[in-house]
Amino acid sequence: MHYGAHTPVSKDMTSKLTLVAAQLNLWVGDIDGNVDKIIAAAVRARDELHAHLIAFPELAILGYPPDDLLLRSGIPPAVEAGLARLRSEIHGIHVVVGYPDYADEGIYNAAAVLRDGKTVRRYRKRLLPNYGVFDEKRHFLPGTSACVFDLEGVPVALCICEDIWSPGPADESRDLGARMMINLNASPFALGKAAQREQVLRQRNAETGLPVLYVNQVGGQDDLMFDGASFAIDCTGRIGFRAPAFEEDLYAVEFGEGFGIRGPTAPAVDQTELVYRGLVQSVRDYVNRNGFPGALIGLSGGIDSALIAAIAADALGPERVWGVSLPSRYTLDMSNDDALIEAKALGIRHSVLPIEQTVLALNDTLAQTFAGCDIDITEENMQSRARGVLLMALSNKFGHVVLTTGNKSEMAVGYATLYGDMCGGFAPIKDVYKTLVFDLVRYRNTCSPVIPERVLTRPPSAELRPDQKDSDSLPPYEVLDPILEAYVEDSRSIPEIVAMGFDEGIVKRVAALVRRSEYKRRQAPPGPKVTRCAFGRERRYPITAVYDDM
Amino acid sequence: MHYGAHTPVSKDMTSKLTLVAAQLNLWVGDIDGNVDKIIAAAVRARDELHAHLIAFPELAILGYPPDDLLLRSGIPPAVEAGLARLRSEIHGIHVVVGYPDYADEGIYNAAAVLRDGKTVRRYRKRLLPNYGVFDEKRHFLPGTSACVFDLEGVPVALCICEDIWSPGPADESRDLGARMMINLNASPFALGKAAQREQVLRQRNAETGLPVLYVNQVGGQDDLMFDGASFAIDCTGRIGFRAPAFEEDLYAVEFGEGFGIRGPTAPAVDQTELVYRGLVQSVRDYVNRNGFPGALIGLSGGIDSALIAAIAADALGPERVWGVSLPSRYTLDMSNDDALIEAKALGIRHSVLPIEQTVLALNDTLAQTFAGCDIDITEENMQSRARGVLLMALSNKFGHVVLTTGNKSEMAVGYATLYGDMCGGFAPIKDVYKTLVFDLVRYRNTCSPVIPERVLTRPPSAELRPDQKDSDSLPPYEVLDPILEAYVEDSRSIPEIVAMGFDEGIVKRVAALVRRSEYKRRQAPPGPKVTRCAFGRERRYPITAVYDDM
Repeated sequence: MHYGAHTPVSKDMTSKLTLVAAQLNLWVGDIDGNVDKIIAAAVRARDELHAHLIAFPELAILGYPPDDLLLRSGIPPAVEAGLARLRSEIHGIHVVVGYPDYADEGIYNAAAVLRDGKTVRRYRKRLLPNYGVFDEKRHFLPGTSACVFDLEGVPVALCICEDIWSPGPADESRDLGARMMINLNASPFALGKAAQREQVLRQRNAETGLPVLYVNQVGGQDDLMFDGASFAIDCTGRIGFRAPAFEEDLYAVEFGEGFGIRGPTAPAVDQTELVYRGLVQSVRDYVNRNGFPGALIGLSGGIDSALIAAIAADALGPERVWGVSLPSRYTLDMSNDDALIEAKALGIRHSVLPIEQTVLALNDTLAQTFAGCDIDITEENMQSRARGVLLMALSNKFGHVVLTTGNKSEMAVGYATLYGDMCGGFAPIKDVYKTLVFDLVRYRNTCSPVIPERVLTRPPSAELRPDQKDSDSLPPYEVLDPILEAYVEDSRSIPEIVAMGFDEGIVKRVAALVRRSEYKRRQAPPGPKVTRCAFGRERRYPITAVYDDM
Repeated sequence: MHYGAHTPVSKDMTSKLTLVAAQLNLWVGDIDGNVDKIIAAAVRARDELHAHLIAFPELAILGYPPDDLLLRSGIPPAVEAGLARLRSEIHGIHVVVGYPDYADEGIYNAAAVLRDGKTVRRYRKRLLPNYGVFDEKRHFLPGTSACVFDLEGVPVALCICEDIWSPGPADESRDLGARMMINLNASPFALGKAAQREQVLRQRNAETGLPVLYVNQVGGQDDLMFDGASFAIDCTGRIGFRAPAFEEDLYAVEFGEGFGIRGPTAPAVDQTELVYRGLVQSVRDYVNRNGFPGALIGLSGGIDSALIAAIAADALGPERVWGVSLPSRYTLDMSNDDALIEAKALGIRHSVLPIEQTVLALNDTLAQTFAGCDIDITEENMQSRARGVLLMALSNKFGHVVLTTGNKSEMAVGYATLYGDMCGGFAPIKDVYKTLVFDLVRYRNTCSPVIPERVLTRPPSAELRPDQKDSDSLPPYEVLDPILEAYVEDSRSIPEIVAMGFDEGIVKRVAALVRRSEYKRRQAPPGPKVTRCAFGRERRYPITAVYDDM
């Protein structure tokens, strides 16, 4: 395995090498489609970009994360057939591609180096993440060896995602004589993640002096979104290539002794804009890949549904988006007006379906059973559920998927009605705090004014009883959101959060609400991870549990 | 660590040792409550059962599975305080108890041997399951050493759950001089699991000659149920102790050279009865631990809701169960009659809330938008959702949790309405195939006749349109269920299932339905695992995925 020992380095890294980062949007399970896409990309890299090598993301042949699809008996032969097609149909360029490697003892998260019909080298991922959103030890065995192969006389090391987050594999690659590294990724987006990746690669680079090409996929996949943002760092730690986030394309990067790295460098993008772009990508991929003709949104006149409508229109085109206002006696004229203004500004279809008749029928049916009971949250939930039933009826009749409008602040404290406003196939902002919802709307309005200023400035309200405001039930979002960040993302205890300067009564109340709402979140639709710790795939809590004082 | 080398064996195993298997129902997160229960059990084992040792289940102090509760900063000090209480409050008996061991490098799934205020020995679980329902590598590091301690002069080895499922830890324990083993478990129920456990222990016994005491917890915990069924095997492979399944108690087991093992041996119980008992336990624990005053069930006159009503009445007492019939124009008189008969036979509260008025209001509200559209599944779903809204209104007003009536056959193929009959906090039979539903009802009627025979013999129907039968949309359950077992539990490919003798068209249709229903299952309430592979925690599939031919 020691490169220098087995293969003479025919020339130093004086001549230029062109590597292509294939920042592709692949599709979990669609092996035939992914292989088609890989072949087309390799041909373009060879013929148009004159590349020596093209590198695809982690597990590119199967898509990521495949989860328990890996265990289906039909997958191994399909993967083998896909690899055989790649070997037979691509010539004249090195292809580095991720795939699941089925061995007798188990499955490896692997990558192959293919060239002119041959598998030049195989590599098996060594560090398997099994925390956060990752379950790789559920499916994979760890590899045990580094991998260095010859590219036009230059010894190049290969590793996969987590392998680069610790010193070991990079150190070994250098010790084996590697002169540069390629790192294949399926690294999900999170706020601040791009900077974290660059920091880690700078660290590896400082330890080994090796330049690294970091290749990541793009696209939305249920509860994850992948931002791409592929980049490369030269042997001096300088970043000489940065692909734009959330854009599927091939990026040619030149590596050479004289100049280090030369490639496109996308301008830095504000985090709010990045999140917006990611949400657009996630909605587009969820709706299109699941075969929906379009999306339905309950357009309340509030800020959350306004944001979702804008995201959907940007993702699918306004003609595929249908906003539905579902007013009740508690809906202010201002809300109805704003919903209409938003629909017009976005150019989406708009309907009005009043819920009054349904709510009256429900109340009437329950009148005898509820005799003598006080009006309470039951009546509020019924309104929300009447809306849910009507939206789902449109969805069933016309095929559009309902996009749920709940944000992370609401999902955290359970300020949402199960089977009501939580109805829907996809929840685009379920991991976006309310304070970030405001920022996203402000950002979207800088592109074109689609959401009335009033929606940003009036106090948020569910409009389920007269003069209701969110602040009747919840602390102000500027207080709630940082408490949630500490409690949910950092798993801090109540005393720790109080020590940060928050009111003890409020912290205890928020923590209790988060605990008590686990059952609701368990039945929430999926939506993309945005923060450091998203509910669902990433934060796995029991429903039945006692942990009052933590 | 070699027992024989360090501690002289003061006497052979000639005298009798009494060990108590504490088959307890612990509560995840409730460290104070669990420690109280452990202390009370140890005192009883010492004073009433005159035991030398009492062994508690895996992670007994925290409960199992704690999932990401393990990551909360309040847990480590609470666990330490709990262990300190055990040391200070229990004397005169060896206590073997599972707990999470927080070390600098990470967390271990550990057990301590406590005696007279001292921690005699600590053991760290070595084999961490990370498949099926288990995610132990997400939280724990593996231990590296066997553990043998002295019990009245007898060298006793300790191991935890998965450690006994492979030869390594048992072999090492024998090599270290152990004369018997104690295995602490949190092993969830599945059909056939008890026989599998006995088979594994027989195998270890055949390899090592060591007698083993297997201690398991009981109780329902969200999507798992623990059956206990603790047992012990002597050095000849004979099972001399078998605790009853799903019964919380302390079981005294005598180990002695002359007679091997002497303990209570519960009679063998039919699998159907076992499942019934487990579902009763699961409903009881879910409802009580989450603080609900009782349970609501939509009582349709069909077999699924009849079964759930019986389970709930047996779990909570009939006075805490409320059956609600929600008839429509398509509900046969026979169905209304049968629902009433069931309610009376069980002695539960019964109400009738017709959905006609709500459905008319919904249709009227949608009339203009649906003009020119054919009647289709939309109208069926609306009826189901009207029922869901009414049941949830009762739940919100009176606090009872709605128990969902969907079975595994329906959940698999999506023969259920999201936000309709899928509404509910807990789904007791979501992992029970329809064919087993029939068996469970037949079993329950042998205890006392509560479900009319007609409910068992009439063709199943959702009654959402005139003369509807399940068999209009689905293959007969005797065909559907084995196909599902092969496709879902064994991950077999379509060609493999066809080769088992099933019609290719039917297999393809069933497989497509299973794939397309993933989004519904993602929003289903939790319910206990019964089969070898339950949806949810155990079978983790992407929603957005292509895998047509597998």
